[in-house]
Amino acid sequence: MRTVEWDYAQNKLRMIDQRRLPAELRVLELDSYNQVAQAIQSMVVRGAPAIGAAAAFGLALAARHSPASDPQVLRRDIDQAGQVLRQSRPTAVNLSWAIDRILKKLSLTANSVDEIRHASLVEAQKLADEDVAINQRMARYGAELIDDGDTIIHHCNTGALAAVDWGTALGVIRMAHDLGKRVHVLVDETRPRLQGARLTAWELSQWGIPFEIITDNAAGWFLSSGKVQSVFFGADRVAANGDVANKIGTYMLALSAADNHIPVYAVVPTSTIDLSLPNGGMIPIEERDENEVLGLTYHGEMVAPAGAHARNPAFDVTPNRLVSAIVTEAGVVYPPYTIHLAEAVSTSQGG
Amino acid sequence: MRTVEWDYAQNKLRMIDQRRLPAELRVLELDSYNQVAQAIQSMVVRGAPAIGAAAAFGLALAARHSPASDPQVLRRDIDQAGQVLRQSRPTAVNLSWAIDRILKKLSLTANSVDEIRHASLVEAQKLADEDVAINQRMARYGAELIDDGDTIIHHCNTGALAAVDWGTALGVIRMAHDLGKRVHVLVDETRPRLQGARLTAWELSQWGIPFEIITDNAAGWFLSSGKVQSVFFGADRVAANGDVANKIGTYMLALSAADNHIPVYAVVPTSTIDLSLPNGGMIPIEERDENEVLGLTYHGEMVAPAGAHARNPAFDVTPNRLVSAIVTEAGVVYPPYTIHLAEAVSTSQGG
Repeated sequence: MRTVEWDYAQNKLRMIDQRRLPAELRVLELDSYNQVAQAIQSMVVRGAPAIGAAAAFGLALAARHSPASDPQVLRRDIDQAGQVLRQSRPTAVNLSWAIDRILKKLSLTANSVDEIRHASLVEAQKLADEDVAINQRMARYGAELIDDGDTIIHHCNTGALAAVDWGTALGVIRMAHDLGKRVHVLVDETRPRLQGARLTAWELSQWGIPFEIITDNAAGWFLSSGKVQSVFFGADRVAANGDVANKIGTYMLALSAADNHIPVYAVVPTSTIDLSLPNGGMIPIEERDENEVLGLTYHGEMVAPAGAHARNPAFDVTPNRLVSAIVTEAGVVYPPYTIHLAEAVSTSQGG
Repeated sequence: MRTVEWDYAQNKLRMIDQRRLPAELRVLELDSYNQVAQAIQSMVVRGAPAIGAAAAFGLALAARHSPASDPQVLRRDIDQAGQVLRQSRPTAVNLSWAIDRILKKLSLTANSVDEIRHASLVEAQKLADEDVAINQRMARYGAELIDDGDTIIHHCNTGALAAVDWGTALGVIRMAHDLGKRVHVLVDETRPRLQGARLTAWELSQWGIPFEIITDNAAGWFLSSGKVQSVFFGADRVAANGDVANKIGTYMLALSAADNHIPVYAVVPTSTIDLSLPNGGMIPIEERDENEVLGLTYHGEMVAPAGAHARNPAFDVTPNRLVSAIVTEAGVVYPPYTIHLAEAVSTSQGG
């Protein structure tokens, strides 16, 4: 199944509970937009493309379950659901992008309440299907950047679980593997929530791609050892100048790669590019609960002393000077990003 | 009690089992040099100065328990114990430094088996006592580098537990606090063994110094936020040119500080400086068991999928260009390190 998919028999949204992996593959059924917002907030579903699709289906649920019989009232209910969904994660721009897209479509094409309800689901499904196609297009462009025999460091999880299906940065690696290139992945475990050790390792196992898990701390040592050919990650938001907001630790990883003249690639659909922000300093950075840092046991015991507190920024911003190229569905984008990202968005989304 | 101390009533070596902290303060009693080597290898005791002192007392145990009645045979037994102890951790040079110092002293001053046995303990005790005095001298020099109100990022554990007592980098922070400067410490949790979250957090709590734990990944974000004034860590070996081998992750941390023009300080006794190595590329890097990376539970569940493997380099090398100054018991040493480190060693150890 897809990470996020509509169940047409029951008219519910099904998603894989990513908090349970790799211990258990559990599928949740969601019946309201509030449940979807909660699932995004609590990271049942994560990854910029996946939460975009989840939010789109969330609007379809809002449309379906609104008691409104007047189109104006129904639109207002859907708008309100959009506001709730938009606030579930502040950093990823795909959330707003997906919501805006659905709302725009509804405002242009649907007039009766039946049409609005129908169109909201049709458009969410279309967005989800396009996401898979876009991922595979990015993967083919990105796979050109990988040579046979490469060792690649990958941060966080950007596989099928981070999208509707296929994946972004990990999708590129998967495509290179499918094309017969031998690749070896050093998987950053990605503290605090360990999406690398849990999700990326699980996906690579399933795909038969060789990998080893490393602590995030060890990436610099491997990069300076001369045995790594490239670094790949996804993003939650890319500013107009190519600054990349992504999972915490990406900046330190990119800096270590640059210090060793190793190329750094961000892989993002153009829906992740926010041309309204001139640079990454303006991207809001979510700070999450301290228990994501402290709720760790190591060989059976709690790690931190009782009463200790933690800080937990979930993202950081990697300046564009550290990013060698940005892989999109419109092709591989090189600096100067301010010009070339706008061109990619225009090519892909028709301006 | 000290981290490592001789029990004169029972003639045994006592040490705090650092693997159990902060859950439990357990003291182990060791009765043979093999137990000491095992304790160093398994990280019952860790931190460059502490393992130097432990090895010195290990030789005293070897001398005590050797059945030799001939001085030549006893010396050979002690030499052999030295070889075993030397191999227990490859990266920290204090181990070899301490063993060499004891062996040299014995070869110069002790003639009978009784004299050798007596001198081995006297010299180990002297080395341990000097370590505490050296730490406090470094702390006074280093505290000058901290201003009232500073926020400091600290990596791994370098407190009293990493030395015989007092500590190196954390000893500097403690001294600044004792001198009335308000400091706030962002404690890198320090994967894989989490010495920051476990040991540094515990020591700072006990000393009443305000702190927050962060994932190692988050250091870059805090450094780029403008709210951090300096970075402090210890070292396991410093090459003649000032390249610093320290706990894995130090290189990425120092690089992130340099990228934001924030000063980086290594705090080391001159016994950690290895003038025989021209640069850090020649420092052996220990790779430890993969289960240190994989043996993690997060909210009650194993993290990595079954069958996954990990790589686990325990140290990395931070190039001298990223190190603003090295604090020693002979003073604060600035570049060019090749000249000034040799001077510091000469001043402190009489050439």
